Amino acid sequence: MAVKYTTEQIAALLEKVSNWGRWGKDDQRGALNFISNEKRAAAARLVQSGETVSLSLPLATRPSRDNPRPVTHLMIRSGVIGHPLESSGAADYFAIEPHGLATTHLDALCHHFWRGRMYNGFDMGEVDFQGAHKCAIDVCREGVISRGVLLDIPKIRGAEWIEPGDAIHPEDLDAAERDHRVTAGEGDVLLIRTGRFKLRRTKGAGAIALGAMPGLHASCLEWLHRRRVAVLGSDAISDVLPSGYDAPLRMPIHTGTLVMMGIHLIDNAELEGLAEKCAREGRYAFMFNPLPLVLERGTGSPANPVALF
Amino acid sequence: MAVKYTTEQIAALLEKVSNWGRWGKDDQRGALNFISNEKRAAAARLVQSGETVSLSLPLATRPSRDNPRPVTHLMIRSGVIGHPLESSGAADYFAIEPHGLATTHLDALCHHFWRGRMYNGFDMGEVDFQGAHKCAIDVCREGVISRGVLLDIPKIRGAEWIEPGDAIHPEDLDAAERDHRVTAGEGDVLLIRTGRFKLRRTKGAGAIALGAMPGLHASCLEWLHRRRVAVLGSDAISDVLPSGYDAPLRMPIHTGTLVMMGIHLIDNAELEGLAEKCAREGRYAFMFNPLPLVLERGTGSPANPVALF
Amino acid sequence: MAVKYTTEQIAALLEKVSNWGRWGKDDQRGALNFISNEKRAAAARLVQSGETVSLSLPLATRPSRDNPRPVTHLMIRSGVIGHPLESSGAADYFAIEPHGLATTHLDALCHHFWRGRMYNGFDMGEVDFQGAHKCAIDVCREGVISRGVLLDIPKIRGAEWIEPGDAIHPEDLDAAERDHRVTAGEGDVLLIRTGRFKLRRTKGAGAIALGAMPGLHASCLEWLHRRRVAVLGSDAISDVLPSGYDAPLRMPIHTGTLVMMGIHLIDNAELEGLAEKCAREGRYAFMFNPLPLVLERGTGSPANPVALF
Amino acid sequence: MAVKYTTEQIAALLEKVSNWGRWGKDDQRGALNFISNEKRAAAARLVQSGETVSLSLPLATRPSRDNPRPVTHLMIRSGVIGHPLESSGAADYFAIEPHGLATTHLDALCHHFWRGRMYNGFDMGEVDFQGAHKCAIDVCREGVISRGVLLDIPKIRGAEWIEPGDAIHPEDLDAAERDHRVTAGEGDVLLIRTGRFKLRRTKGAGAIALGAMPGLHASCLEWLHRRRVAVLGSDAISDVLPSGYDAPLRMPIHTGTLVMMGIHLIDNAELEGLAEKCAREGRYAFMFNPLPLVLERGTGSPANPVALF
Repeated sequence: MAVKYTTEQIAALLEKVSNWGRWGKDDQRGALNFISNEKRAAAARLVQSGETVSLSLPLATRPSRDNPRPVTHLMIRSGVIGHPLESSGAADYFAIEPHGLATTHLDALCHHFWRGRMYNGFDMGEVDFQGAHKCAIDVCREGVISRGVLLDIPKIRGAEWIEPGDAIHPEDLDAAERDHRVTAGEGDVLLIRTGRFKLRRTKGAGAIALGAMPGLHASCLEWLHRRRVAVLGSDAISDVLPSGYDAPLRMPIHTGTLVMMGIHLIDNAELEGLAEKCAREGRYAFMFNPLPLVLERGTGSPANPVALF
Repeated sequence: MAVKYTTEQIAALLEKVSNWGRWGKDDQRGALNFISNEKRAAAARLVQSGETVSLSLPLATRPSRDNPRPVTHLMIRSGVIGHPLESSGAADYFAIEPHGLATTHLDALCHHFWRGRMYNGFDMGEVDFQGAHKCAIDVCREGVISRGVLLDIPKIRGAEWIEPGDAIHPEDLDAAERDHRVTAGEGDVLLIRTGRFKLRRTKGAGAIALGAMPGLHASCLEWLHRRRVAVLGSDAISDVLPSGYDAPLRMPIHTGTLVMMGIHLIDNAELEGLAEKCAREGRYAFMFNPLPLVLERGTGSPANPVALF
Repeated sequence: MAVKYTTEQIAALLEKVSNWGRWGKDDQRGALNFISNEKRAAAARLVQSGETVSLSLPLATRPSRDNPRPVTHLMIRSGVIGHPLESSGAADYFAIEPHGLATTHLDALCHHFWRGRMYNGFDMGEVDFQGAHKCAIDVCREGVISRGVLLDIPKIRGAEWIEPGDAIHPEDLDAAERDHRVTAGEGDVLLIRTGRFKLRRTKGAGAIALGAMPGLHASCLEWLHRRRVAVLGSDAISDVLPSGYDAPLRMPIHTGTLVMMGIHLIDNAELEGLAEKCAREGRYAFMFNPLPLVLERGTGSPANPVALF
Repeated sequence: MAVKYTTEQIAALLEKVSNWGRWGKDDQRGALNFISNEKRAAAARLVQSGETVSLSLPLATRPSRDNPRPVTHLMIRSGVIGHPLESSGAADYFAIEPHGLATTHLDALCHHFWRGRMYNGFDMGEVDFQGAHKCAIDVCREGVISRGVLLDIPKIRGAEWIEPGDAIHPEDLDAAERDHRVTAGEGDVLLIRTGRFKLRRTKGAGAIALGAMPGLHASCLEWLHRRRVAVLGSDAISDVLPSGYDAPLRMPIHTGTLVMMGIHLIDNAELEGLAEKCAREGRYAFMFNPLPLVLERGTGSPANPVALF
């Protein structure tokens, strides 16, 4: 089942799935172009009960093994201030590095490079000390509202979770679609559940090897390209780690999606509640709304994606 | 037209519009309770064309007269790193104080106090150095998805904008509803356009008196209470400033909404594009999605609210 | 040798060593008052060779077991910026929480409270959201220049280091003075070496129990009081931990020095190089210069104390 | 009196004052090498009364015209915390960009580039996203203890301050030396008073043209080189601004000192108190101690330099 590509084969595969030039040489939105107005209107028509599920972890303010640099959250004013006349309100401050393994966030297309290039061939030098001058997260300014589709891989494997280091292959995606009676298609936000957070809660963060992640094998890239998904998300970081490839191909899914196809990634989405909801409802498609912050020149954004049923 | 309340009258008015206890003594969600599943489903049914409008200002990383403490945005890695093998991606960091006059954000109910209390009678001491132990912004975890209604006050006054310091009265809200053929009701997110950002762009930030803001007069509190709106937003900060009242009643709309009614506020929403869209479409109601970050114990969150038509 | 005080005995001891009122009821400088101009001039006369030893750890920008919230150090500009014309220089940014176990820093007298009070009886409410309105670190604005005296406890015990949790008693201080032919006296900066960083480098940070520290037993308070030392420093945090006492007496040395005697503390000083130098020179007194930053309302400051021989 | 160099002449002058290679091709300490142990010992022998003067501005936590990005100072714990049992102490956090016009700081040699190079010919690419791999501020780890010499330029011109934009020439330095009966020499820390902070306090920050600074004319470079000063400081930023030269030669004193001679700079030193002290004492030389923080890879450090008389 598992194809073991050579580095050359991966490089060839990356060329094959490229969307560079597909929406013009100046395009910075990539596969977001698959989300048409009609696609959004159709996503809204999926709403029946009006129930919601948030896919966001709380912002992690405490350090842990997989979160060495937690969010700094400090108070500016509060109700326990000494001078009563001033205590009319409370305010706070937070400092965050959205990337990594602890924050639910969107990766901008400028987050990853391959051979000195980012999506659509822009030079990686377009990201400098002022931030990203191309393909920054603010291309998602209008939100990423579309149909969301969940594929619950542990469910179809009869497991509680996919073990860190275990790869998901196109056959798994096909099997999940058959089981869930859903087909991922053009403009969809595709969410892959690995059960990572169920494992983490069951065994504790300390029991999980640093750097090991369940995720998609490189052979899924062609599947994603064929289906024309707009955005890919996961409760891990989409790539299986270790991937079996060395740098700079250490994360072929990141390279294939962000750089070649222009597919934004959602990392560290909390999918346990969503999976339960989908199983209970017997449907795995829903209206989906991640609304990243408008951080011009940003390489990503923390987000609170919400599924609406 | 303008009622000039005494401080005692304001205090009595605040008691009159109180929702304390309305949803139980432990409730921390306030008027969000007006947003039922059915309300959300109905909001989704408003979607026709699938077009979107973002109401978020870009995160303001440069200081200005009304933004003395801008967002700190710094790069962690980029494409111009010295060591080529490591330059496989870019990442950044930002630090933000969401409140103030420069960031599009939601105010949590714990953001404001009155006589030592926050919404539902919780003691202001519940906000301490660890943050807010009651009424934090994470009560909006599932998003604030509902029907949005825009009332464009400059339009009905035949002006380009409301001057800073000019108050909006219930009669203005009624007139706008008549003009727009819309009626704000239970569970709606009500957005009040003052044209602040049109003024700011036309005359420059330096031309606007510090501390002066167009906004609602205290006499609107009963109107808001009667209509059972869930959330109130504005392109300013909802209160007219100066309000004519001294501390601690300096911002009676903040006190009446956040503390007494449990109505979350959206401050500094960019409503120019939305107003143009509404005028063009001839409709002032739409599906509305602000999805604040899940910052447990936070007093507010930056947000990118998006209207869907 | 080890006295085991009851809580009541400690409380009585704290009263006994109190310097409250000694320099007037408004005094915020505490035992810094022991450093006269003549004391500083005498310290300068100690200088012979002009050789220097820094007692500062590098600011710790990586997380470790004893440094969960490391310094954030990010670049604003650098030599690898994309736009050549702008690359005339480099600049950076750092964010720091000086207290804790990882940064060489001075504790301001406002850093610690006892029964709601700080040094000289000031109410702990004087430290609020704006910072410390009394006894802030800027009382050290003119520097803490004086005679420094090192007492090397492992040396007189014939050990490489004092084990975490092991207490140092007045007898140890006396023995070290005899061995080193030095007597700590009025206005001195007294530095106690425990060998903590030798242990940490030998065994690794992971091998040391969290919360265990070598340090002074409460019975040293009277010794310190009698000697009229101005400032106390250590390569740990002066208190032995666990101290054998529960909160709020968990750190009796902190309480006795900062709160009762008005003695500033230097935590996490790197004393390995200094100890080698003192042993080589056969002298344990030197000119000492910690110059904390002038952070008005600050509760402490990172510092680079330098000993001059 | 004022020489107007052409750009070519400046470039030639820069070559002439170069210390590249003087202390070996790997040297990163530059003119700090002029401070010998004997120099430090001699500096200590200058101490007579033991009186001290701090040259540090308080860290500026409020924005002003010349401080658009002030220090962020926030509290982590304080005496007004809600839960009494935890209120045993106070701690804080600060975030700082040391460079600019508001913080008393040392510039590391890596802070400035000229034709792609920093001091001793190191490539500017040695400063990347990890910080400075060469010539970082931690080369000052042992402090910059030496003789300090103040030249009070307004005094010898009979003015209260030097106007922003007015240049100081070698003749001024010579005249000040004669007046003060002092001669700057090898290894000295030379401090140039312009009276900038007297002007700022008298007229207000708003009255001073942005970007205009009193300071040394490029013709002083040879003087500095001849005298072999180790460090140069000022109550402004050493360069007169506008300098009359365009980028990249906009700050020829920065280029000549940091890049060519390897002279560290002290910017924004508060020299009013020092000038009064020197005038009162009738002596302009003293023991000088700036002890920058040990920020490995840092491009500078806030500092509290203290003069000892």
